[in-house]
Amino acid sequence: MNAYKCITAYEGTRYNGWQKQGNTNNTIQGKIEEILSRMIEEPIEIAGSGRTDAGVHALGQVFHFHCEKDLFGNTSKEKFLTEWNSHLPKDIRILSIEPCEPRFHARLNAREKTYQYRIDTSLYGNLFLRNTTHHIAGSLDVDAIQKGAGYLTGTHDFKSFCSNKRLKKSSVRTIYDIQITEDIENQLLLFTFTGNGFLYNMVRILSGTLIEIGLGLRKPEEIPAILEGCDRGLAGHTAPAQGLFLMSVSY
Amino acid sequence: MNAYKCITAYEGTRYNGWQKQGNTNNTIQGKIEEILSRMIEEPIEIAGSGRTDAGVHALGQVFHFHCEKDLFGNTSKEKFLTEWNSHLPKDIRILSIEPCEPRFHARLNAREKTYQYRIDTSLYGNLFLRNTTHHIAGSLDVDAIQKGAGYLTGTHDFKSFCSNKRLKKSSVRTIYDIQITEDIENQLLLFTFTGNGFLYNMVRILSGTLIEIGLGLRKPEEIPAILEGCDRGLAGHTAPAQGLFLMSVSY
Repeated sequence: MNAYKCITAYEGTRYNGWQKQGNTNNTIQGKIEEILSRMIEEPIEIAGSGRTDAGVHALGQVFHFHCEKDLFGNTSKEKFLTEWNSHLPKDIRILSIEPCEPRFHARLNAREKTYQYRIDTSLYGNLFLRNTTHHIAGSLDVDAIQKGAGYLTGTHDFKSFCSNKRLKKSSVRTIYDIQITEDIENQLLLFTFTGNGFLYNMVRILSGTLIEIGLGLRKPEEIPAILEGCDRGLAGHTAPAQGLFLMSVSY
Repeated sequence: MNAYKCITAYEGTRYNGWQKQGNTNNTIQGKIEEILSRMIEEPIEIAGSGRTDAGVHALGQVFHFHCEKDLFGNTSKEKFLTEWNSHLPKDIRILSIEPCEPRFHARLNAREKTYQYRIDTSLYGNLFLRNTTHHIAGSLDVDAIQKGAGYLTGTHDFKSFCSNKRLKKSSVRTIYDIQITEDIENQLLLFTFTGNGFLYNMVRILSGTLIEIGLGLRKPEEIPAILEGCDRGLAGHTAPAQGLFLMSVSY
């Protein structure tokens, strides 16, 4: 039995999200499994670090899988990846593959994740970023957003920022850092969240709430009460999927 | 009668090129005319600085048009553009509109054009640039390409670099400058051509020839003989449309 850890990047626009579910055919997990199984002539199931929603992108999603074959027995890692990528759709790339401990688990062993939410602030929308940003014409109050982000970092119960109403497990998570960055050249505003884990839709609700603060619809000082209320209705809207990237997963 | 000059950017992937031709419906010119005519309730024909092929992109295509209405009579330029762009598909943007002399002609008055050909040299292909670059994995000999570009600049008969076999007019053009630039961060190699005009497919054949030099399939020193031969068969292949951008037009 061989075990491998892979890093993948994808544009989620055309897919029903990462995770294979019942009859939902067009998923990123499903596509990667289908191509790999055919290529190495062995039925393969891969396990990702977590699901990404329909329309969400990744620069550094991690998955693992087990197989009978020694994949680099007759070839190099680079040649294996070149062949794998040549069979994949062009909006999914496998960036790396490494042998790993058989006990390694991409989801259970994840220690830290980084997500980025990308806002195009240009007047008419950058046409080349139409699928990979959320377009909000005009100026957002970056100082207010910075202040709001300050209230969100740390260990909190993020129940107000979770779409799953029937969550039975703890909704306490730690956000280590939220970077608010302006990319002046490309007229982008970037929110980069690093934490020990994120609830369902949490990054998109955090982003929607920070956007509402940036638009002056809310005050940064409201955040503590939103957190304390533990009520989804108190937080902002769920920002659209197309602006969200899973950047990296640490182990 | 009012006259206007506009600058537009588009991703050509989904379109049958710039120019409306007979029954070919899905063109960029056709789409812009259709939306504008409906918006200002007047049948409008626009005239571009030149056609771009199917799959070719633009950051600074220029066109002009005439109309009865004074477009900024009841609104500002910015509001007019915001409305126009809101009706256009997201892969076409109008970047500017200015009143111009009634005699101004986007094609006939063009003095200088700049095109850029973009090559993705990354190993597996940057998935977010899949429609806007030509992917060539591995290294190209940039010094040899620079040398080849040196032979191409200046005033020459570019008949060998033109796909139109029945060209009746002169095929003499002047290339003022060819910049070969490496974008290390994004693993791109960029060829930027500035000249007083370009023949049908000329930039793509120039790029295909420079790519063949970069791959070691040709020597830069062959260029003078290719130019002198005035025979399309002597030059390299026509590089794929998706790597080409019309960058700007000067008047």
